[in-house]
Amino acid sequence: MCQTHVLRVTAAKAPFEKASIERRALRPDDVAIDIKFSGICHSDIHSAHGDWAGGIFPMVPGHEITGIVTAVGERVKTFAVGDRVGVGCYVDSCGACEYCLRGEEQHCAKGFVATYNSLDYDGNPTYGGYSQHIVVTERFVVRIPDRLALDAASPLLCAGITTYAPLKRWKAGPGKRIAILGMGGLGHVAIQFAHAMGAEVTVLSRAKDKASEALRFGADHYYSTVDPETFNDLAGRFDLILNTVSANIDVDLYLSLLRVDGTLVNVGAPAEPSQYNVFSLIMSRRSIAGSLVGGLPETQEMLDFAAAHDIVPQIEVIRAEQVDEAYDRILRSDVRYRFVIDISSL
Amino acid sequence: MCQTHVLRVTAAKAPFEKASIERRALRPDDVAIDIKFSGICHSDIHSAHGDWAGGIFPMVPGHEITGIVTAVGERVKTFAVGDRVGVGCYVDSCGACEYCLRGEEQHCAKGFVATYNSLDYDGNPTYGGYSQHIVVTERFVVRIPDRLALDAASPLLCAGITTYAPLKRWKAGPGKRIAILGMGGLGHVAIQFAHAMGAEVTVLSRAKDKASEALRFGADHYYSTVDPETFNDLAGRFDLILNTVSANIDVDLYLSLLRVDGTLVNVGAPAEPSQYNVFSLIMSRRSIAGSLVGGLPETQEMLDFAAAHDIVPQIEVIRAEQVDEAYDRILRSDVRYRFVIDISSL
Repeated sequence: MCQTHVLRVTAAKAPFEKASIERRALRPDDVAIDIKFSGICHSDIHSAHGDWAGGIFPMVPGHEITGIVTAVGERVKTFAVGDRVGVGCYVDSCGACEYCLRGEEQHCAKGFVATYNSLDYDGNPTYGGYSQHIVVTERFVVRIPDRLALDAASPLLCAGITTYAPLKRWKAGPGKRIAILGMGGLGHVAIQFAHAMGAEVTVLSRAKDKASEALRFGADHYYSTVDPETFNDLAGRFDLILNTVSANIDVDLYLSLLRVDGTLVNVGAPAEPSQYNVFSLIMSRRSIAGSLVGGLPETQEMLDFAAAHDIVPQIEVIRAEQVDEAYDRILRSDVRYRFVIDISSL
Repeated sequence: MCQTHVLRVTAAKAPFEKASIERRALRPDDVAIDIKFSGICHSDIHSAHGDWAGGIFPMVPGHEITGIVTAVGERVKTFAVGDRVGVGCYVDSCGACEYCLRGEEQHCAKGFVATYNSLDYDGNPTYGGYSQHIVVTERFVVRIPDRLALDAASPLLCAGITTYAPLKRWKAGPGKRIAILGMGGLGHVAIQFAHAMGAEVTVLSRAKDKASEALRFGADHYYSTVDPETFNDLAGRFDLILNTVSANIDVDLYLSLLRVDGTLVNVGAPAEPSQYNVFSLIMSRRSIAGSLVGGLPETQEMLDFAAAHDIVPQIEVIRAEQVDEAYDRILRSDVRYRFVIDISSL
């Protein structure tokens, strides 16, 4: 076992404090990682604020982790000391169910072990990436391609795979019209992926001043959702709307923007129930769906795709002592587009 | 033009009365049909009662029509006098949009012309199957296979295609676990289709006394939805739930019965909005969808499939003067499983 410095909250909505925890001793299949950067995901805030049931405190958030391998267990074959690696939203799964066997560990029948705010299969709480070191089973570690900087790559481990997986699954590509709803941490990466996949990309965002940035990320069109004309102009237009907004939306209004067989895929989750009229689905055979991160093979594929297409999250690197302030700024939508903690400041 | 006797309502919720209307003179592409039977669909009641916006009165409902061809226009090639034919939910579409061109006329970009309670492209109201005769463009007429009786076949024109199309689209077949929610006019036909397609079929119905009939229709399992244990026993079980119920349901509860990538497809439509929690979709990548009847080629395919697999709606044939009473009985769920009007009694 080894001690490591962390940023933790001891109770819901408490400020962050520095502390020390123990990481487990290296097992034969383990990779020990010196964490360099850890992105701040909106779900970190929900978890640290106790918005969702079942918060485990003290809590060390962080599931957008990049770093360097410092040691490997005797059975580890894929990684060596010095490798540039990443860890995303989960750190264990059963490995034996149909989903694990086909590389969709996020749907593990036993339930995956989340990177933080979770119990591992031995019953011990997991602590995430706001931390100097972490020890993770080899199977849950991915490789960061050389072309990606470790700081800018970290949001790809959650925001990246969360948007890449549904775009692939619902076949974003040439001839498809894709709308990205919301242009924040997830949305600004989704635009880049959908564009690189060859789709015609429209950004739908409340903001009236983000159009030029959207086009810079690869969008073909930008519409403000506070302009009612938007919904007339775009009626029946899209094959897919990727909803990255975690606030509640007028589902029927957005369904009206889908063509026949179109799908509204949610990757953000409001706490309150959503409402829809069944006629909005029936009349044009539309669907409402959800998507949860992605499996490990797909996460590696996403990183390689990002490297090949120069897809880079736009980040603001902060120091450890700025995390509370960063949370406040995220809640005010005052971030373009993802905070990343420089762990060397911890 | 020719006069024909009809059953009509002159205002929302008025009782039916006999009357006479004119059918148009035969055009070169038209087929004139002597109607033998007309099924009563639950949507007839919604329309005649003015439950949905835009009712056109006087109204002659009926879109589950079977009969015999009595005359054909000079350009008609597919049908001849004496042929056994059917007409379903719509009688015209633009014929030129991408949906019409691929035989999905129900999604016509111009909007199809419904068999009743609609305006045709000349602006004239359409009158449906509670009628002795009807004149329909050849393209919207289907052939009733010899093996199907004209009375029992009539519900296939709406209830049949409404359930066949989504079962095909969402790939009901060997190795798939399908739940049919609701065992009424649509549900009892859906069971037969899903079974014939090779799927494992579970019926979910409020009733506690329909199990033996469900098994007779081909179901493998029957569960009453008023038994709370049902939802524990069946958690995560189905690839597809076909919801034939037009009352509101607890969407999250039914989503919990779907496995990863499962879909809840609605073919019944409650008037009130439905509610769901986005987490119910995200965590297992589930979908909520809707489906609207089917195209003409698929309607013919469905009839041929029904004939090949001895799929027969279970009907109660009534006389014209019993329609008001039949509506009341449908609203009390007192029908097993579809009323069909014997038009010779009109």
